[in-house]
Amino acid sequence: MKATAIAPSNIAFIKFWGKTNDKLNLPQNSSISVNLSNLHSTTTVEFDPKFKKDVVIIDGSMQQKETLRTTKHLNVIRKLANIKTFAKVVSKNNFPKGSGLASSASGFAALTLAAAKAANLKLSEKELTTIARLGSGSASRSIPDGFVKWEKGSNHQTSYAHSLHSANFWKINILAIIISTSHKKISSTEGHSAAKSSPFFKIRIAKIEDKIRNLETVIRYKDFKKFGQIIEKEALELHAIALTSNPPIIYLLPESIKIMLLCQKLRETDTDVYFTFDAGPQPVLFCLQKDSQKIERAIKNEVRKARIIKSTPADGAKIITNHLF
Amino acid sequence: MKATAIAPSNIAFIKFWGKTNDKLNLPQNSSISVNLSNLHSTTTVEFDPKFKKDVVIIDGSMQQKETLRTTKHLNVIRKLANIKTFAKVVSKNNFPKGSGLASSASGFAALTLAAAKAANLKLSEKELTTIARLGSGSASRSIPDGFVKWEKGSNHQTSYAHSLHSANFWKINILAIIISTSHKKISSTEGHSAAKSSPFFKIRIAKIEDKIRNLETVIRYKDFKKFGQIIEKEALELHAIALTSNPPIIYLLPESIKIMLLCQKLRETDTDVYFTFDAGPQPVLFCLQKDSQKIERAIKNEVRKARIIKSTPADGAKIITNHLF
Repeated sequence: MKATAIAPSNIAFIKFWGKTNDKLNLPQNSSISVNLSNLHSTTTVEFDPKFKKDVVIIDGSMQQKETLRTTKHLNVIRKLANIKTFAKVVSKNNFPKGSGLASSASGFAALTLAAAKAANLKLSEKELTTIARLGSGSASRSIPDGFVKWEKGSNHQTSYAHSLHSANFWKINILAIIISTSHKKISSTEGHSAAKSSPFFKIRIAKIEDKIRNLETVIRYKDFKKFGQIIEKEALELHAIALTSNPPIIYLLPESIKIMLLCQKLRETDTDVYFTFDAGPQPVLFCLQKDSQKIERAIKNEVRKARIIKSTPADGAKIITNHLF
Repeated sequence: MKATAIAPSNIAFIKFWGKTNDKLNLPQNSSISVNLSNLHSTTTVEFDPKFKKDVVIIDGSMQQKETLRTTKHLNVIRKLANIKTFAKVVSKNNFPKGSGLASSASGFAALTLAAAKAANLKLSEKELTTIARLGSGSASRSIPDGFVKWEKGSNHQTSYAHSLHSANFWKINILAIIISTSHKKISSTEGHSAAKSSPFFKIRIAKIEDKIRNLETVIRYKDFKKFGQIIEKEALELHAIALTSNPPIIYLLPESIKIMLLCQKLRETDTDVYFTFDAGPQPVLFCLQKDSQKIERAIKNEVRKARIIKSTPADGAKIITNHLF
């Protein structure tokens, strides 16, 4: 039983920050994201009695921490499928892992789909999103297509993700800018735990439903300027929460600020470009197709070493037939 | 009637951010600062019937906006002294104006003291701090000596500054780092107005009295580590409020982040150094005398163009006899 899945990374417009349940990865708030066409993980899973233990190879190497997390996730699948067979898992990302570009989102989405298929489970998309969530919260958002909402829910069944709009609903351009390939110092897991220590966290949560409703409306009407204003504010709020956590977390690097200021400057010349940041230093910019080249040149000019990965909204996780082993 | 005063700039440990009364510059919260020995303004004021209007020369040039603000401040003094004479005001700063290093604090403290003396007013230190406040809120803190608290008060008389400790109470080193000499885009006045638009501002104000009490204690016991942790948190909170104001205000520059991260790195090597920032990009670092040289070298290494102005705690505004004209 071998299966392979490919899953996109996603970038959140409204962030997942803080959990109500660490074991189930239940979030403090619902979140909204879009899948990225050119940032993805491909994962092949084979359950076979020939394996004496789970073997996990990510981007060509075995790492203890990742293996433990993967085995834990395979256990969920094994329990559902009522099997005890060990598995071999080979996964590759087409972008640097652990640098704040949500590799765990695409990774656990692909793992979930491939493992479920390899274990011959028949699961609905909704069920798949809840299982992906157990591996990494934001992985739930990499399962459905296009623009996705993860409903916070209140238990395992009700905390699931679903598509708001298809990938081709709005052909905005998304520029993920890799300014640093070094592994971030504070993991998202640590950041989620720290969130509650910010004196501002409760207020964020109290006000977030209004923000979500506003964003859903501006996406529905494709109001790019308002969309941009909301996502920038939300990203700055995430970092304001991190900066005021105890102890403070500074995710931003000098180049992150450079790109923020560049966006402001470009807007002064009537180029609509807006930034977001996850819990990491990498800026992700949103622009319209017509401005994309000009913006890419400006970025390269500002941060010479930046690597830009250009995406459009993408479908969610899917099974493919080319196995990795 | 001619008089000259010199007044230090001050850097706040607990910031003044947001006003309850724009006309009187009544602050939303009390604040605590220290005067800086090597950042100062010197101002000569002469009231004389020979002047047909107020003439204001700051750092060698006349600027309309500054002239208006100075004339308004001279009117306060004239009213108290019951005179109608115009004045010549010549002022110079030993550091770049409007770049977030509180030149308005030292400027209005020096102006207040020189003008009061030139107008032959006999005022207490407390009264001088309230008058300085009318020109620029933080100027009130540049009148008393050393470590200063500005009590927020509730009206003109009760919103005054006073010394908590003399300048030589604690000989910490203060490194003001000028990373940008360009005039900041968003004035402090605009920032103060925007503060209320942050969803987090009310919480900040609700919790600030506890922070002030803590800081007063750690200063009293000269607990440098705890002192550093409090001032860094407070600076990050100020910027969290700015980042979440509507529209967001990004005061930090790439080099600001560089210096923040440098402080974190130096602390990993047991070098106690802590940062603060006012509403601007310039970092102000606190360290102990013994580490000062090492830290200065590290700063120069990190940001080549940085200009470092090294201070120790200083006395407040005082009258001097060397006039500028």
